[in-house]
Parts: sequence; structure tokens; C-alpha cells
Amino acid sequence: MAVDEKETGFVKDIRKQSADFPGWYNDVVRKAQLADYSPVRGCMVIRPYGYAIWENIRDPLDALIKQTGHENWYFPALIPLSFLMKEAEHVEGFQPEFAMVTRGGGKDLEEPLVLRPTSETMIASVLRDYIQSYRDLPVLTNQWNNVFRWELRTRLFLRTLEFLWQEGHTFHETAAEAEEEVARMLDVYRQIAEDWCAVPVLAGRKSDTEKFAGAQYSTSIEGMMIDGKALQMGTSHYFGENFTRAYDLTFTGRNNERQYPHSTSWGMTTRMVGAVVMAHGDDSGMQLPPRIAPVQVIIVPIFRSDTERTQIENALVGVKEELKDIRVKVDWREERPGFKFNEWELKGVPIRLEIGPRDLAKGEATMVRRLDRSKRTVPLQELSLAIPAMLEEVQLALFKRARDFREQHTVRLDSLEALVKFFESSIGFVITPWCGREEDERTVKDRTTATTRVILSGSAGPDTPCAVCGRPATVEVSWGKSY
Amino acid sequence: MAVDEKETGFVKDIRKQSADFPGWYNDVVRKAQLADYSPVRGCMVIRPYGYAIWENIRDPLDALIKQTGHENWYFPALIPLSFLMKEAEHVEGFQPEFAMVTRGGGKDLEEPLVLRPTSETMIASVLRDYIQSYRDLPVLTNQWNNVFRWELRTRLFLRTLEFLWQEGHTFHETAAEAEEEVARMLDVYRQIAEDWCAVPVLAGRKSDTEKFAGAQYSTSIEGMMIDGKALQMGTSHYFGENFTRAYDLTFTGRNNERQYPHSTSWGMTTRMVGAVVMAHGDDSGMQLPPRIAPVQVIIVPIFRSDTERTQIENALVGVKEELKDIRVKVDWREERPGFKFNEWELKGVPIRLEIGPRDLAKGEATMVRRLDRSKRTVPLQELSLAIPAMLEEVQLALFKRARDFREQHTVRLDSLEALVKFFESSIGFVITPWCGREEDERTVKDRTTATTRVILSGSAGPDTPCAVCGRPATVEVSWGKSY
Repeated sequence: MAVDEKETGFVKDIRKQSADFPGWYNDVVRKAQLADYSPVRGCMVIRPYGYAIWENIRDPLDALIKQTGHENWYFPALIPLSFLMKEAEHVEGFQPEFAMVTRGGGKDLEEPLVLRPTSETMIASVLRDYIQSYRDLPVLTNQWNNVFRWELRTRLFLRTLEFLWQEGHTFHETAAEAEEEVARMLDVYRQIAEDWCAVPVLAGRKSDTEKFAGAQYSTSIEGMMIDGKALQMGTSHYFGENFTRAYDLTFTGRNNERQYPHSTSWGMTTRMVGAVVMAHGDDSGMQLPPRIAPVQVIIVPIFRSDTERTQIENALVGVKEELKDIRVKVDWREERPGFKFNEWELKGVPIRLEIGPRDLAKGEATMVRRLDRSKRTVPLQELSLAIPAMLEEVQLALFKRARDFREQHTVRLDSLEALVKFFESSIGFVITPWCGREEDERTVKDRTTATTRVILSGSAGPDTPCAVCGRPATVEVSWGKSY
Repeated sequence: MAVDEKETGFVKDIRKQSADFPGWYNDVVRKAQLADYSPVRGCMVIRPYGYAIWENIRDPLDALIKQTGHENWYFPALIPLSFLMKEAEHVEGFQPEFAMVTRGGGKDLEEPLVLRPTSETMIASVLRDYIQSYRDLPVLTNQWNNVFRWELRTRLFLRTLEFLWQEGHTFHETAAEAEEEVARMLDVYRQIAEDWCAVPVLAGRKSDTEKFAGAQYSTSIEGMMIDGKALQMGTSHYFGENFTRAYDLTFTGRNNERQYPHSTSWGMTTRMVGAVVMAHGDDSGMQLPPRIAPVQVIIVPIFRSDTERTQIENALVGVKEELKDIRVKVDWREERPGFKFNEWELKGVPIRLEIGPRDLAKGEATMVRRLDRSKRTVPLQELSLAIPAMLEEVQLALFKRARDFREQHTVRLDSLEALVKFFESSIGFVITPWCGREEDERTVKDRTTATTRVILSGSAGPDTPCAVCGRPATVEVSWGKSY
């Protein structure tokens, strides 16, 4: 078809992914109308297409959070400064990023209120009143809200001064239950990342250097972006009694003694939208996994006269009925087909359906998938089977491609020299035996900028030396440059 | 049944609705675990049961907002003070309530940032970049977020320093289109209030005294609470060119000249949860409309031995399968049935299903509706028909009862003396002819504390004098004391 020739000739208004990945990312986010910087430094405007992707991630996550027994609450966004100052490590981690309300109702406040950077301190303060006995435990809370961290270097979706997320906070009778919870919610995040966003992840504990301020330990899921860098996509923390002691939150145990509950927290943010962009796109723009695509099928009618237009309009009544469970949009704008093809490719719509008079005459449509631009003609009556099947195929293919990419860009190494050499010339992850010392992390970071991502295994085999320092290794860890 | 005798004997831990309505409201909100005051002055903690009601109002509202062509965005919560100072009336209305961020990242800010009290100013500033031509119009935005107004006297759900809402902001080529939008969204609010929350409303324009700061005119829906007071439940505003002029937001019209779009905004808040409590309850607590009830059916098993418990457990497998499309909960707690009945009545669950060994022997359950405590025995196999039918009956009955209550407490009067006398001895709404002068509103407010609620009709019939001052009346208006 004549139209297809035009298609490849189009110069798209985005930088090349292979030549300038950060530039490509920024162009895609803005040109595909996901988000923009706002007039307020470091804050973004999430535009409808970006927000719709977020809704399609948020809704299944909310369902999984509820299925695992959690309930949604809403806690105040304004936290008295004194609340935040009680847990020493937590203060140290977050204080530099505080946004402070010092005036309200025309008066200076006696005590500044901090816009929540995270709500551990508020929730522990509030739940003191609700938790008295072991019978009140566990308390499994979640909330969807906005948080504020005064970041200096910001990037759309990945790091902004204000962002949207959910934060779960739970309180348990025993350490074992709390640790199970930490693992359970990390697995929920893995499901959202892999099954919905088609981004394969490494899941495991963070090193002490990389943990959340105030946690006994943190776990995270990490995906590999197309530039080989790691993106932390969700975190789940075990606090032990750290916060409940600091906030004097106690319960009467089965032994009739006052005890501190063991608490956890876990969060996933609008950063996920950025993850989807960076894990799947190509030079033409985004490639959205069908399960989270706001538009799963874009129909581009191709016509040269009003008669032809009317014919197509009539045929589309039936097509839309066939596809009523699919998120379908018809692009009737007065633009050339090639322009439309480009735009919907940029926006990552998984399937394009082209319908012109010749297709109609044969009772067919042309189905083009964004994944690889492969084409197929499909009888109109078979669309209700062919489209869902292709959407499912694309969902799996995107996941598989991302997993293959990660595997191709992951190596096992056993010396510092090899590690340094790898990061000089290659992109991706390195897995090594490690002894667990922070000093080694500093050494590697200084020489490569890479950091430990997650600990993949709690043992490294007998008599295995640490790749960095040669001392006996205790774990296997992944290293990567990261966002 | 023995259990029923206990039921009425229970003293519930809430004040009497008829004796102390504000006290009753506060007790119900707290004891039914909808919300609590937080450690931060004027801010509330929304607890899971209250948040679930909000979700059940929010979700159908979000669906209606989308069906009427609007898209969800997210705009920054922090608004530079200078943005807010551009529209004079708007500043005057909101400035006394500003919460101001003056420090960020450890430094004093050059310009304070105001926590959004509402987003007209931010959205007009951002959309300047997206609106160029009449082809870009209309722009139909909505956002779900938290807003901050430094209120001095607060009440749970009704007026708090921070609250949750949606705010729609739209921009149109013509005044007529914008005015249609204002009416359309007011009707969406009417649907949510009446069809979902079972609260009948008066809908219409507000007087100039009562309009939103910066609007050309405001419209609202107003429900009558059980104490006869009015509650404003949703507002929809027409701005004309007020905001677009103030923010220099222009477009090139069909005549090729630069013009200002006509804009609107409309909002509905977590106050709706308070409306539901205050419009339907009784001395025993809340009465939730089934469509928004987090638990539609509470099953209370009644047993005296482990054998009986097991029998009921087995029977409930089938019952829950029958009711799989209904929000059902089984209360297995180790408490007396009477205690459970009281608690679920307080929480307003529409239907209670009691199942004991004698019921089981007959293959029946006892179905009790919260509305009037009427009882019916129902064969277990008929539950899948009987329950949805009764839920629908209760939904309609609650609406009808609230509408009858409002009609019984609404009178038409035609003199100031009658109006004053009414509010001295009665509760409810008064409808009068009115000439529209602010002075009359002051007179009535001074003598009765009542204010105009909405204008019900744009004419008052020929030669009808204003009830307050005797000048020729131009409208029919409703008066009421209000929250």
C-alpha cells in the first residue's frame, strides 16, 4: 500500500534511542503526551495519556493489595516536624528533602509542618490509639497519596519533587509474620512489574548501604532498562521494632506483657510509568504492554471520498461491537494516514487496524502490531478472536524480549578487574560473589559508578572468594549502574 | 428468638440523634470507625470503613466524569503565591485559608508555595501551553487529589483543613458551551447524590453572596440533613473569561482573532461521606444506601457448639457462592450475637442474615433489614434472588424516606415575619419569592441565621412581591440553615 511507504519515510520528532537514551526518554514522555514539567520547579504535570497508564497500573495493584488483606486509609499529608525527628536514621535520611509549611491562615505556625516524604512517623503516631492487644494485630494499612521530597535533580516520572504512590504500613505480633509480609508485598510488586508492565525484575534484599532510612533491611525489585541501567521499581522494608519503639507504640502480648509490634512498609510510585517507557521502546517511541495500554487497538480508517468514509463508518459499527471488551479508539482526524501511524506508534498502541475500501470489499482489515510491525489481514468476523489473541501474544512477547535482553546483558564475574572492565565497555548487570562489606561497594562505585542492586542468594558456595576483595564470600549480589 | 430480646436491650455508646444531632454525628463517625481527628489540628484520619464508602462514591463518579468526555490529569499541589494573586476575587476568597511552604531542601524559598486550596490558577497557567486554536477546545480536565484550606472550626468530613475531592476544570470556545458544561456536571452530581447516596437534592444557582470566589455564577446541589439543615454536596461554577483573562490564556478563534476561552470548574469532596451519615441515620447509627455500602450483607452465624458451628460453616460455602456478586461479610468473632447486631446496625449495613441450627434444619435464613428491622425467613436457595431485590428495595426506600422528610420540612412562605417565625420553631427549608437583593439575605441571616441555598426558578410569577422586602420578586429561592 502507498501509505506504508510514507510510513517509514517519516522523520519523527524524537531523538534516537540508541544515540541519546536520556534525550529519547524525555522526548517520548513529552511528545507522547505522558507528562511535562510544570511552572513549579521539579514538579510535573501528568497528562491524560500518562495518567491513564498510571490508572491501569494502580487498579490491579490496588486489587492485589486488597486481596492480600490490606485496607485503604487516608492519613494527613502534614506531619509535625517533631514527629519526624524521633527515629534518628529516618531523620537523617529524609531531613535534607523536607518541604516545610511554616504559615497557615495568615499566621506563623508554632511548629512547622512537613509535607509527608513518607508516612511511617504519622501512621505510628496515629495507630498508637488503635493497637492495644495482640488481638488487634496484624494491622494492615495502605494509602494512595502524593508525597514530597525536595529533590535537586529531577526527571519526569523517575524523580520529581512531588509524586504519586501507594504506601503500605503494617504492624505484626511477631518478627516472622512481619518478614513474611515484606516478602509477600515484594512479590505483589513483582507481579505488577512482570505480569502487567512486562518488565522482568530481580527481586531481593538491598545491601545496608542501599536500604531505606530507618529499616532493619530493605528489599526491592529492579528492572533493566534498554540502556542497561537498573531501575528500582518497588521497595518493601522490614523495620523490626525501630519505629514502634521510637513512637512508643506497644501492645499487650499473649504473655500479658507490653511489647512492640514489628512493622513493615512498602511502596510503588508513578515512576512505574517511566519504567514502562524505558524498558520497551524503540526509535519510533513507546511500546505499551497491552494490559496497561489506555488504547489497545487504534483503528485508522483509510478513505478518499465521503462515500468511502460512510462505508467504513457503517462497517465500524459492527467492528466496535465485536471488540466491546477491548480498549479501542478510532482516529477520524483530518490527517494523512502516515501521520496517524507515526503518532500511535510513538504512543505505543499495541495494535493498529487499518480499514480501507479494498479491505472492506473483501470483508477484511489489516492488523499491524507495534511490536515488530508485522501485518496480517483478518476477516472482520474473526476480529473478536484475533485481537484478544494478538494482545496476549504481544504482552508475552514484550516480556520475553525484555527478559532475553536482560539475560544477554548479565554476566557472572569473579574479580574486581573483570567488573571494572565490564562497566567500561558494556551495559548491563554483573553478578558476583561478595563478602558483604560496605568498603567493597565504595571501591566498585568509585571505579565504575555501579552499585549493588539486590542480593540474589544468601550463600555463594563453599570456599568462594569475594570478587572485590578476595575475603570469603557470603552472598551473590547483582551490580549495575542505576537511576 | 432469644437473641432478639437482647438486641433491643443494648445501650449503644452514641448520643441520641434526636437530642443532640452534632453529638450523634460525631459519635457515629468515630464509633462506626469512619474517621477520627488526627494529631494535626483540623486534619482527619479516614479509617478503612469510611474510606471504602468514599471509594464507592468516587468510582461511579469517576465513571460518569469519563463518560461525559473528561480526562484525568494530575497537576502540582504546590502553587507559587504569585499565581494565586492574579484573580482579585479569588485571592480575596482563599487567601485567609492559605497554607504556605516557605522552606524546602533546608533553604528558605525565594517565593512561598501555597498548598492548593483549589487549582484554577495552576491549571490556567499550565494549559496556556496546550491551547492555541479553537481546534484545541474544549479541554475537559479532571483530577483527584487533596486540597488544603486553613479552616478554624472543623468537623469530621464536613470541614477539615485537608480533604480529598475531584476538581474538574474545563475550557470552551463559547459561553454557551461552558454554561452547558456547568449544568451537565451539576446533573452528574445530582445523580451521584440521588442514585448512589440516596440523598434527594435541590439543584440550582447560588445567589451572588454565596458564589465561589472568582465565578460569574455558581450552582450547587443541596441536601436536607435529618436536623433540617442544608448541606452543600457538590458545586459547579461558570467563570466566563475571568480566569482566562487573568492568566492570559488565549486561543485563535474561527475568525482568526485571539480570544479568551470560557472556563468552568466543579468539585465533589469526601464531605459526601458525612452527607450519607447525616441524611439517613437513626438512634442506632448509620443506614447506608446499599449501592455505596462496603458491606451489603452481614452474616451472623448463631451457634452454641462446635458441631453447630461446623454445620453453619458448611452451609455458608453454598450461601457465599449464591451471593458472589454481593459484598458479603461473615462475622465469626467470639462475641454474643446481640453485640454483633448492634455493631453492624451502628455501621449501617443494609441487610443482616442470621443463620442458626434451627434455620439450617429448615433450609432457611432470617433476613433483617436495617431500614426498619423488618424480618423475613428466606429459603437458602432463594437468597440469590431475595438479597439483590431487597437491596434494591432498601436503596429506593431510603431515597423515598429522605425525600418525604424533605417535603414534610419544606414550606412556601411569602413574608419576612412568617420566615422568621418558621426558623424560630421549625427545622427545614423555606421557599419564597425574592427580588435578589443581597440586603435581603443579610436581613434574613441576621434574624434567623438562615441563608439562601439555591434559586429554584428564574421567575416568581407576575406581580409577586419579594417575601423579604416587598419589591417585585424575580426568582423563587430556597432558604435554610446550613453547614
